[in-house]
Amino acid sequence: MADAEIIAIGSELLTPQKVDTNSLYLTDQLNALGVEVVRKTVVGDERERLMDTILSAASRCQIMVLTGGLGPTEDDLTRDAVASALGRTLVFDQAICDQIEARFRRFGRTMSEINRRQAYLVEGAEILANERGTAPGQWIENDGVVFMLLPGPPNELKPMFERQCLPRLEKVLPAQAIRARQFRCVGIPESDLDQLISPVYKQYPAVATTILAVSGEIHVHLRARCPNADAAEALVAEVAAKIEPLLGDRIYSRNGDSLEKVVGDLLLARRAHLSVAESATGGLLGGRITNVPGSSNYFLGGFVTYSEEMKTKLLGVPPEMLVEHTAVSEPVAKAMAEGARARTGADYGLSITGYAGPDGEKIGLVFIGLAAPDSSEARRVQFPGNREWVRAFSINTALDMLRRKLQAE
Amino acid sequence: MADAEIIAIGSELLTPQKVDTNSLYLTDQLNALGVEVVRKTVVGDERERLMDTILSAASRCQIMVLTGGLGPTEDDLTRDAVASALGRTLVFDQAICDQIEARFRRFGRTMSEINRRQAYLVEGAEILANERGTAPGQWIENDGVVFMLLPGPPNELKPMFERQCLPRLEKVLPAQAIRARQFRCVGIPESDLDQLISPVYKQYPAVATTILAVSGEIHVHLRARCPNADAAEALVAEVAAKIEPLLGDRIYSRNGDSLEKVVGDLLLARRAHLSVAESATGGLLGGRITNVPGSSNYFLGGFVTYSEEMKTKLLGVPPEMLVEHTAVSEPVAKAMAEGARARTGADYGLSITGYAGPDGEKIGLVFIGLAAPDSSEARRVQFPGNREWVRAFSINTALDMLRRKLQAE
Repeated sequence: MADAEIIAIGSELLTPQKVDTNSLYLTDQLNALGVEVVRKTVVGDERERLMDTILSAASRCQIMVLTGGLGPTEDDLTRDAVASALGRTLVFDQAICDQIEARFRRFGRTMSEINRRQAYLVEGAEILANERGTAPGQWIENDGVVFMLLPGPPNELKPMFERQCLPRLEKVLPAQAIRARQFRCVGIPESDLDQLISPVYKQYPAVATTILAVSGEIHVHLRARCPNADAAEALVAEVAAKIEPLLGDRIYSRNGDSLEKVVGDLLLARRAHLSVAESATGGLLGGRITNVPGSSNYFLGGFVTYSEEMKTKLLGVPPEMLVEHTAVSEPVAKAMAEGARARTGADYGLSITGYAGPDGEKIGLVFIGLAAPDSSEARRVQFPGNREWVRAFSINTALDMLRRKLQAE
Repeated sequence: MADAEIIAIGSELLTPQKVDTNSLYLTDQLNALGVEVVRKTVVGDERERLMDTILSAASRCQIMVLTGGLGPTEDDLTRDAVASALGRTLVFDQAICDQIEARFRRFGRTMSEINRRQAYLVEGAEILANERGTAPGQWIENDGVVFMLLPGPPNELKPMFERQCLPRLEKVLPAQAIRARQFRCVGIPESDLDQLISPVYKQYPAVATTILAVSGEIHVHLRARCPNADAAEALVAEVAAKIEPLLGDRIYSRNGDSLEKVVGDLLLARRAHLSVAESATGGLLGGRITNVPGSSNYFLGGFVTYSEEMKTKLLGVPPEMLVEHTAVSEPVAKAMAEGARARTGADYGLSITGYAGPDGEKIGLVFIGLAAPDSSEARRVQFPGNREWVRAFSINTALDMLRRKLQAE
């Protein structure tokens, strides 16, 4: 199996504010080809240290991805450093220069002299066309090591990797097939889920199992890598068949769909409409639901009622109820959901009211209300964590409550 | 000036899901001491590559921070690899072992035999006490290079760094002071802003200037590093005084406050209340405003009107207006803002209606409406980018429109 190293180049990636995220995308892509990422380095726009990093990586891996440093300024040293490290020269390529110039003309601008720097290739390199920017990438094979020089901006890097690098990598790498499964769950802590399924996945060390907690959701990834597709498929199917019943109806998606997409599809299939009423989450539940393109087909809208008065005025929550039970209570959650449903004419109303903090002894206490054509209900939940977490968990729980209701119907 | 490298150790940091964030915290801390971070590496639990990384870093920097790999299992190789790289032995320390054992007892548990591994020190190392976990850190000086071995969990690493490492670093490093300024702006593209201020900051190479674009906001950071605080303050003040007038009223914050916090403070100071009406952003504007703890003091709530019917029903937008101008138009944006204001009794109503995509030829066209006690207005904007960007830009623009209105009053 081949090992890869990723080198991200750019002084801005060494500030306290910025993190290299290209490497996550690249790791995912490389893993899918059966390639392991064994080291990641971030290095500034500094020639010596960059060369040193390249040489040290080249001595230990078969695939090296360098991102960034392909721009037109003097700071952009990747071409230079790779050429020096490999003992090759840089060659000016008139065709690339013409393309860059044409690109500028298309946008009604004139190419600056400095952009000529982007038309230099490491001797012997293949050009990786850039559909979204001026800097072309480069593919170099040297002493059994593949070097890919890719631009830093993710919107340039991703299409270049997928269209230019993947086909070349598939030729270079030994045939291997990977088959994967995933289960996305809500409503179970990561450690409980691990305890539940670890007796199974520990029996299959050949299947890579990853458990990922993402603000209240848990994603389980299974990946089998075998010399052929049939073997990989059989192996991953065997493990998945044992894990799936353990997770049961906590699974909301098997294909990577988000929770809001799953809920949207369930509403669509039932030709039903939804509206929301939010207090603690301030609109984020609606924001999450409308992450999905086309959500206007089932989402009517909603109410953000951040004060008691608004709960009465916009949703018709009786003032006596607010006095007797407080705004964070089961009856008020129900009344909010019912109000949202009634005042918009939606089939379903979903509400959230709670204490998101940061202060107060009741922080994390949240009620979720769900009004349906046949009944309404509310659920009390106590979440750990800070304001951001409480809001994210509340939204997951609300969406999952609606998912279960729709699936039960 | 001293250079630092950070090495994060752990195979989980080489998966597509996980990013090393300790290095951001450490960079911030080190920068404040006048230390530059010049390279960051992530390496798996693999002895050879870890040693290779350590040796390469030690040859080029004065300060090396290693995080992770101090646990009790065989995967935890940091102690081992550092000792081998420096040609030192590992020494068992009974006092540390007793402390670990005592810690287990405090939690009503018995120490496992494997935890004895955590009681080994690199020969000559100073112990860095761990208040929050079992693994002690280690401080080693070798050939003019300081090595800090710190635990991976952030809640263990941070107090250890602040209480154990900072005082030691202050002794080792030459006296230096850093003084910083920041300006946060909206409403100007990054390249335009750079063109505007680069003639100034290029005259001051001794002041580190960083320009950071964060979904439609631009943050400018200035950092002067001098042998004493007075000199650093004078230098950074001089540059800031030249840059500030160039940015003018595009600056919304000088102290790192978020745009929603600034708007909230302006509303609070005027004892004014706000409500919102959202279409394309689906609730995210309300969600953003309520990021701020205490926002209930000025935010009443709002309406998510994701269909034309809801715009009429909940906000009173005349159906004829929707037919004549479409839902994404100046009059409708105004009517939405006025409706939100009137139906909640707020002083200000802020609205967003637009095409967030992903499809359609008008994608990125957005109207922002603002209804105030004295007047109402609407602004047409055309944003580049995908659904997520259009929604984020729209929210920034809406908040900034309200900020300018409030500041002009």
